Amino acid sequence: MRIALAQLNYHIGDFDGNLARMEAAIREAIRMKADLVCLAELAVCGYPPQDFLEFGDFIRRCEAAVETLKSLSREIAIAVGAPVVNPVPEGKDLFNAALFLAEGQVRHVHHKALLPTYDIFDEYRYFEPGSGFRVVEWKGTRIALTVCEDIWNVGNENPLYTRCPIDEMMAGRPDLIINLSASPFSHAQSAERRQVLRANALRYGLPLFYVNHVGAQTELIFDGGSTVMKPDGTVYAEMISFGEEIRVFDLGEVIRNPGEGPRTQDKITSIHDALVLGLRDYFRKLGLSRAVLGLSGGIDSAVTAALAVRALGPDSVTGLLMPSRYSSGHSVEDARQLAQNLGMPYQVVPIESPFAAVLQAVAPVFGDLPFDVTEENIQARLRGMILMAWANKFGAILLNTTNKSEMAVGYGTLYGDLCGGLSVLGDVYKTEVYDLAAHINRDGLLIPPNSIQKPPSAELRHHQKDTDSLPPYDELDPVLRLYIEERQGPRELIAAGFDEALVNRILRLVNTNEFKRYQTAPVLRVSPKAFGMGRRMPIVARYLS
Amino acid sequence: MRIALAQLNYHIGDFDGNLARMEAAIREAIRMKADLVCLAELAVCGYPPQDFLEFGDFIRRCEAAVETLKSLSREIAIAVGAPVVNPVPEGKDLFNAALFLAEGQVRHVHHKALLPTYDIFDEYRYFEPGSGFRVVEWKGTRIALTVCEDIWNVGNENPLYTRCPIDEMMAGRPDLIINLSASPFSHAQSAERRQVLRANALRYGLPLFYVNHVGAQTELIFDGGSTVMKPDGTVYAEMISFGEEIRVFDLGEVIRNPGEGPRTQDKITSIHDALVLGLRDYFRKLGLSRAVLGLSGGIDSAVTAALAVRALGPDSVTGLLMPSRYSSGHSVEDARQLAQNLGMPYQVVPIESPFAAVLQAVAPVFGDLPFDVTEENIQARLRGMILMAWANKFGAILLNTTNKSEMAVGYGTLYGDLCGGLSVLGDVYKTEVYDLAAHINRDGLLIPPNSIQKPPSAELRHHQKDTDSLPPYDELDPVLRLYIEERQGPRELIAAGFDEALVNRILRLVNTNEFKRYQTAPVLRVSPKAFGMGRRMPIVARYLS
Repeated sequence: MRIALAQLNYHIGDFDGNLARMEAAIREAIRMKADLVCLAELAVCGYPPQDFLEFGDFIRRCEAAVETLKSLSREIAIAVGAPVVNPVPEGKDLFNAALFLAEGQVRHVHHKALLPTYDIFDEYRYFEPGSGFRVVEWKGTRIALTVCEDIWNVGNENPLYTRCPIDEMMAGRPDLIINLSASPFSHAQSAERRQVLRANALRYGLPLFYVNHVGAQTELIFDGGSTVMKPDGTVYAEMISFGEEIRVFDLGEVIRNPGEGPRTQDKITSIHDALVLGLRDYFRKLGLSRAVLGLSGGIDSAVTAALAVRALGPDSVTGLLMPSRYSSGHSVEDARQLAQNLGMPYQVVPIESPFAAVLQAVAPVFGDLPFDVTEENIQARLRGMILMAWANKFGAILLNTTNKSEMAVGYGTLYGDLCGGLSVLGDVYKTEVYDLAAHINRDGLLIPPNSIQKPPSAELRHHQKDTDSLPPYDELDPVLRLYIEERQGPRELIAAGFDEALVNRILRLVNTNEFKRYQTAPVLRVSPKAFGMGRRMPIVARYLS
Repeated sequence: MRIALAQLNYHIGDFDGNLARMEAAIREAIRMKADLVCLAELAVCGYPPQDFLEFGDFIRRCEAAVETLKSLSREIAIAVGAPVVNPVPEGKDLFNAALFLAEGQVRHVHHKALLPTYDIFDEYRYFEPGSGFRVVEWKGTRIALTVCEDIWNVGNENPLYTRCPIDEMMAGRPDLIINLSASPFSHAQSAERRQVLRANALRYGLPLFYVNHVGAQTELIFDGGSTVMKPDGTVYAEMISFGEEIRVFDLGEVIRNPGEGPRTQDKITSIHDALVLGLRDYFRKLGLSRAVLGLSGGIDSAVTAALAVRALGPDSVTGLLMPSRYSSGHSVEDARQLAQNLGMPYQVVPIESPFAAVLQAVAPVFGDLPFDVTEENIQARLRGMILMAWANKFGAILLNTTNKSEMAVGYGTLYGDLCGGLSVLGDVYKTEVYDLAAHINRDGLLIPPNSIQKPPSAELRHHQKDTDSLPPYDELDPVLRLYIEERQGPRELIAAGFDEALVNRILRLVNTNEFKRYQTAPVLRVSPKAFGMGRRMPIVARYLS
């Protein structure tokens, strides 16, 4: 039995495009003499389709795609994920299914039993859990066909579910496990996934073929990393990360031969590569190619620009330098140097004259009230306005450069520096932005040392520093990480040795700035807990605030 | 048996405040000689607590509140909703529970079995469904105690669940049903709720005591409408909508005596009252009292201003009139007239001079490229900036005035007229805004007739009308309603007689403008399908686009 894993970049709702991509992979698998080709979870429509699943028209198009795949299964068996209608009136209208197509027929249907409904996942919103699990036999080989989370109730410390579908399939004496997945990247995911695959192989003593999506869908980045696991829980092969790949594996060889072992990538490299893919796919899937961003001379905009240049090419990324009366001379110079290093175009648009005009317009209303955060915000909003004007005039998308630490504590101006169609660093803490800068500078000095070394400042008033308003980032980030990623409360944080006043101050900042995060751009997700769809918080709450 | 229903306005995470409110209601119920007082679903923490439920600290505070309520149960039995920890490691960590407290003890715990996970609900994200249902006996009366959705698998056409908890409780021969709810308002909800309560009363031949939340939590508005249903499915009493109330009912009288029948309110009146409550609670729960909004002379800002004045008082709402070179003379006059009619302060801040300064600043970059949507957006963004500056300087919240039709098709400028902390009309179609205006003018001319009668225009270029870019609203709104609320696709809409080109154009506008809605303010929800947490759509999708 020769099994092909096709790790493809789907596009939500692009039925023609997805079908063309799958068809090419199927032809390639036939050429490579595979008996079976495995496509990913909900491959026909892309993942996550979200509320499009509630539209009958959308489901009909999924069914039409399956019909086409069925006709392609005369030459090769196909395992593919698709939503299928629940024939029973009780329960949710759909199942999240893995279809086994062969000889032009649907030979077997598995309904996903474990429906992830946490963090970024909402599957019980749409799907009825499956029950009654059987194996499918093809060319004398018995296959335990599963979908993603179905194998995640093994080997992890926090069992979210009360059942385990493969346990039931074991009555059918399967020869191997296939898992069609849609498992998004985080810097912790690859190791955790390998551990779960290993636990399954060991528990059942079976080889396991795991195929994942690759490519980004707005905030979610799928890294691929499709894996073949030997029955002894060692890695036979891992496919590439962040790219499409089709590979064929011989079942006998997987069982007999030693494996290649796992691929490994350090955390910052994987975040870097994920962000580049996230950027590239956001533009490509929206059919746009030009990006614009503000270059302040600081490290966040420098790292964002470098990532954008790698994703889109230097000619497609324009930087705007928008000095005000409070900008230091070196800021403009650092930004100019960065643009030159990256080979990207830049333009200088001073905001001094519109700033003066706005102050004059509001003067009759504000009278002689003192300068405060209002005037700081006006500068940030003027920059946002000019960037958006550039984006409108030249058909570009504005990139947001805010980092996760700033997003967390609300250190940013709504409709100002929080503008943008996509937040590139919104899931990267400030201390990690420095690591990304070092990574980018590994093969040559792209980000000017001055942008890395100078104390962070918004430069919205004279001699301003971030530390005027915030704790230093090396004190702030550990508390943020424990609160946001680990859901530790004030009691745990203080018990862990953090200063009580510091903890209370930080948690209050996070909770009272939910209203800003509600209105900011989608954030490319690279951590296990990103702002956005994976973290849902009420705005008017009165808790730790 | 005398049963008190306490319909209270909770605040998410405000444990002290919620406890004080519940304690006062309990004392009042004791004073009114009730044997049992019923508080709502998750009353201790407010609804929906969202991801705060993932914090151990938050759950400990819920438990502490329950301890206090237990000590109050020496004088009266208390039925109250709270999250409780699942003692078993498998499954979700929490149950959504109804606790029956009496004589200082927890006498009975019911775990909610049917967990709504659709539209605005995410309960399976947090809770394990309950199983093994029993009645609780108190003073010789056997009670079927349930939580909200537990009774919603009866009498509705689309059964989402495969079980029905009261069916199992019937073995315990209950004398009545109690349902603790958190059921948010929509203009269709009150009738549907009454039908479900009636279907339960009839199915089991039992009286039913239903107690709901009242008050708004960001976008969700709870209308109250707590209800006592007779065993024959007729309404014994309905408590008030949109306000707190405590009433005591004698079980024998509920069974014997004729009921008061249902309260009814027409759709526009209920939407009006809901929006006023939604506005009032948003400000009160954030601890702020001042609102600011732009007055364009059009109907949307006029209706928003009128609602804000009713919610907050005329002195707390300031209007800014911000004419440009494209503003018609009557716009300023209509806005001024509105402010005078409403008795609210207003100020005029012309944007001409900052507009000219911004154009001059970008002139070296834009060269002689022609005037297009860029320059229109600059005007809208200057107005947003000035409104936000006013909000910053005077500690106000900016109200967004965009209606649902505009939100749907993206007819608005991101960071411009889409600015604001709260969207008041974002769930009200333009054609319904006219109905609201008529409702507001019922008892006296508040909104100037000219604002109602003139053709809608954004006035961002000469002689502009909404119909330059959009179909007329009476053609647009029916298609939007069927697509958004009824999830009808192009095939159904064309079959229903709508023009194919019109349908395709409208659906494309809705789908390609998801990125704007992603970044706009929370929308007060008054329909069964509002933009925001209840409608989750991918941004990069390629479907009907």
